Amino acid sequence: MDVAVINYWLSMLATVAFAASAVLAVSNSNIDLFGAFVLGIVTAIGGGTIRDLILEVPVFWSTEQSYLWVSLFASIIMYIGCGVIKKRNIHLLILYLDGFGAALFGIVSTKLVWDLKFCLPVGPIMLGVITAIGGGLMRDVLAGRKTLLMSRELYAIPVMFSCILYLISLTYFPKYQLATAVSCIFISFIFRAAAIHWKISIPYWFSHEQSKQNNDNY
Amino acid sequence: MDVAVINYWLSMLATVAFAASAVLAVSNSNIDLFGAFVLGIVTAIGGGTIRDLILEVPVFWSTEQSYLWVSLFASIIMYIGCGVIKKRNIHLLILYLDGFGAALFGIVSTKLVWDLKFCLPVGPIMLGVITAIGGGLMRDVLAGRKTLLMSRELYAIPVMFSCILYLISLTYFPKYQLATAVSCIFISFIFRAAAIHWKISIPYWFSHEQSKQNNDNY
Amino acid sequence: MDVAVINYWLSMLATVAFAASAVLAVSNSNIDLFGAFVLGIVTAIGGGTIRDLILEVPVFWSTEQSYLWVSLFASIIMYIGCGVIKKRNIHLLILYLDGFGAALFGIVSTKLVWDLKFCLPVGPIMLGVITAIGGGLMRDVLAGRKTLLMSRELYAIPVMFSCILYLISLTYFPKYQLATAVSCIFISFIFRAAAIHWKISIPYWFSHEQSKQNNDNY
Repeated sequence: MDVAVINYWLSMLATVAFAASAVLAVSNSNIDLFGAFVLGIVTAIGGGTIRDLILEVPVFWSTEQSYLWVSLFASIIMYIGCGVIKKRNIHLLILYLDGFGAALFGIVSTKLVWDLKFCLPVGPIMLGVITAIGGGLMRDVLAGRKTLLMSRELYAIPVMFSCILYLISLTYFPKYQLATAVSCIFISFIFRAAAIHWKISIPYWFSHEQSKQNNDNY
Repeated sequence: MDVAVINYWLSMLATVAFAASAVLAVSNSNIDLFGAFVLGIVTAIGGGTIRDLILEVPVFWSTEQSYLWVSLFASIIMYIGCGVIKKRNIHLLILYLDGFGAALFGIVSTKLVWDLKFCLPVGPIMLGVITAIGGGLMRDVLAGRKTLLMSRELYAIPVMFSCILYLISLTYFPKYQLATAVSCIFISFIFRAAAIHWKISIPYWFSHEQSKQNNDNY
Repeated sequence: MDVAVINYWLSMLATVAFAASAVLAVSNSNIDLFGAFVLGIVTAIGGGTIRDLILEVPVFWSTEQSYLWVSLFASIIMYIGCGVIKKRNIHLLILYLDGFGAALFGIVSTKLVWDLKFCLPVGPIMLGVITAIGGGLMRDVLAGRKTLLMSRELYAIPVMFSCILYLISLTYFPKYQLATAVSCIFISFIFRAAAIHWKISIPYWFSHEQSKQNNDNY
């Protein structure tokens, strides 16, 4: 099986996870179906769109429309099935998939920007992180929610470190691109999964203000 | 009279309506003149600017500056005359004009994107809706207001359906472009006008959550 | 000493000021280090990035990465030293530097857009103001704070007037570009410094609503 094919299907899975977790996140806000699928699509394709605008390349969903369709259908199905999903523990599965999506999109973007030799060495890391969290930031802003930058959720930091790690391995071990990519996605996802499982957020001593701890996490 | 000329004057009217309704919408927020005209201009040209960035074409207001001047003057006049307008029923007229603007900009953008053959068939609909509602979303985010995605206002859905309808007619009846464009703008506007007149928002049964109905509409 | 060299070092100083003032502004929000440096970088490079996207030129930090590094380190140092800085009066110095940064970036952008002959005569003023305030707007939106458009802070108006003044002098006195640039930056900064020093905000009579004066300024 080809790497591109695997990448394609994993990207679709990540897109579904992004859209579904977005609808889940805003489903308490008395949102209607239109708002739900707009936010689902924005979350799924927003980060990559910002990346492509900065790179001055055609936006990825204009050449591969399945991203749009997949996020549209995932949002609608999620909106309808939201009641069922909340009662069961399926929403935990979606959180994990969302973390996997962020890990995957971060590494895939880092590779893409690296191949374009854009703004090395910072560019690939920066645009990797933007692709992973940009859509979620846009969703939170449009939904009037606190963005993840202000929550202490351990979400973007694992992605950033895995992008840095991948960039280092691309530079010094260019022969093992696939192996290092898979490892980096895995490491990033494991950290996120641990954060979800044990409800780890950034330790309070890591911040300079220890008094106000009224963070309502995602 | 030429179609381009009619389109030009209607676009100017729609720009005035967008800018004026934006200033009206934020006028309760103790905003100053600078904030008012920035938000007026952002609302009037924001959606089209996002569209042009995604299309990788020069932004429309760089080749046709009258959009900027018209939205600037409309904002300033509206800011000064706001007290008068609120007392009279002129603000209803502006709401209708704003609905007409969204209908017009949606269809004009759909045609523009269709002509560029960008990301068919989804592209024209998506960018049509973005042009119609993008500026308003930016205004609400910058003004710290609840965006229309979270209110249940029947605003974007008529635009979306008329864009879909227009796209179908462009595909199957390419000869009657003008007639179908006018019809689609009309249909979209009639729905919006009905929503304003009878204060229709999205039915509660259309949403999965029926309890929280504290939506403060636009 | 070359003008380009002076411009480079002043731009770096302005970048430091933007990043540092951003971290200072959000430091009460129980933010973690990651959030702090993301907001620092966004504030420092956000406005110029929007300008470059609209101009369809490569983003400025992709060709000159020191902007990224400088804003990154300034944010981190500021985050760590925040407690010390708040106690002393260093934060006032940073506010002045931030005002200087807005003045400088506005004029530098006006010149850059003028040289590209983009959308004359409105383009240079508009993109000058966007460069000066765009990053701060993005910071406030991402941090869930009231944007400066809604506060009555005298921040953007001096920048706008100095950009207009500079544009006029570029048009009618093209020989004295450097002298007028320095004068315009100086005028813009003096106004901002006066606003900081005497806590001037926009006079209430300049707004149509005099009742609600619960503006919590920046």
